[in-house]
Amino acid sequence: MPKIVDHEERRKQIAEATWRVISNQGMKGATVRNIAQEAGLSLGALRHYFSTQEELLAFAMKLVKDQATERIDETAKMDLPPKEKILKILLEIVPIDEDKMLEMEVWFAFTFHSRNSEEEFDVQYDEIYMGISKIVDYMAQNQLLRSDVNQQIETERLYALIDGIALHALLEPQRVTKERIVQVLTYHLDTICVDR
Amino acid sequence: MPKIVDHEERRKQIAEATWRVISNQGMKGATVRNIAQEAGLSLGALRHYFSTQEELLAFAMKLVKDQATERIDETAKMDLPPKEKILKILLEIVPIDEDKMLEMEVWFAFTFHSRNSEEEFDVQYDEIYMGISKIVDYMAQNQLLRSDVNQQIETERLYALIDGIALHALLEPQRVTKERIVQVLTYHLDTICVDR
Repeated sequence: MPKIVDHEERRKQIAEATWRVISNQGMKGATVRNIAQEAGLSLGALRHYFSTQEELLAFAMKLVKDQATERIDETAKMDLPPKEKILKILLEIVPIDEDKMLEMEVWFAFTFHSRNSEEEFDVQYDEIYMGISKIVDYMAQNQLLRSDVNQQIETERLYALIDGIALHALLEPQRVTKERIVQVLTYHLDTICVDR
Repeated sequence: MPKIVDHEERRKQIAEATWRVISNQGMKGATVRNIAQEAGLSLGALRHYFSTQEELLAFAMKLVKDQATERIDETAKMDLPPKEKILKILLEIVPIDEDKMLEMEVWFAFTFHSRNSEEEFDVQYDEIYMGISKIVDYMAQNQLLRSDVNQQIETERLYALIDGIALHALLEPQRVTKERIVQVLTYHLDTICVDR
């Protein structure tokens, strides 16, 4: 039988199996054995793709970030009115559907796991802050921002709002629904944008 | 030797030892053995105060909430201008010093641990939302809120902002300092309050 699934694709499938294990059993369940089982692979086969648990976890976490970044980049290229585009980009970060909920679950589990881990995972929060900073810059360049706002504080405030509401969507999904999230983010953008 | 430390006080000391273990080693390090060692007690002595690990962890988590609630209640009784009081109350929730940083660390570690735990810990996020809701009500009652704000959305937004900035203070302490937090929260209150 010819090899129809290429190496990178298989690594991605294993990373996705890792997410499901983390979501169902937490980081403590994210053993190589459990992940191999979830991916339908033998331990030996899994080791062909990732030689250590650390390598696998680091890849699985990086894939969360890469996927989100890709969605954001695609949205940024769309031909949309600036304010609409901003909202759409923000909604690519917060968990408004099952896939993003899984990403967020993995992200938080991993974040708190790596704080007390011997291994150093490079989470690079600063990149996210810089991303939010770019969004605020984009708003300023498109004359969307009210003249009395402080861009640096707005960046910090928007970043906190986004992560806070993402956390609440995960922990309190009954109240913090997709509709609620859209409502809060639209409201927030309205308060810092000029009327058009 | 007479018994000089009463039962409740000793339970509190053990809970605080639990926080330190969680902060240093994460939830996976929060075994009865490690906690007894940190508290300077034998396993047998610790079992005198908490018969199971679950009971101990639940008590340690409840103490975080009780301490924060007590600080908030005390601040609420202070004779301060309403807006100043609101800011002071919010600063009792976010980690602006080492003690609160430890509380927050334990809170998040516990939250993500309990999501994948067999035991049901009653975290009661809804109580926090209700607390924030009371703060926004208090602002409205004291004619602090601008007339064009939506109280329900402001509650959700303030709650997200508070938890988001608390999370960032924990994960990115270099950027999100106490000064930065005060700056962002003061700015946020200014945007939703009438000028005085």
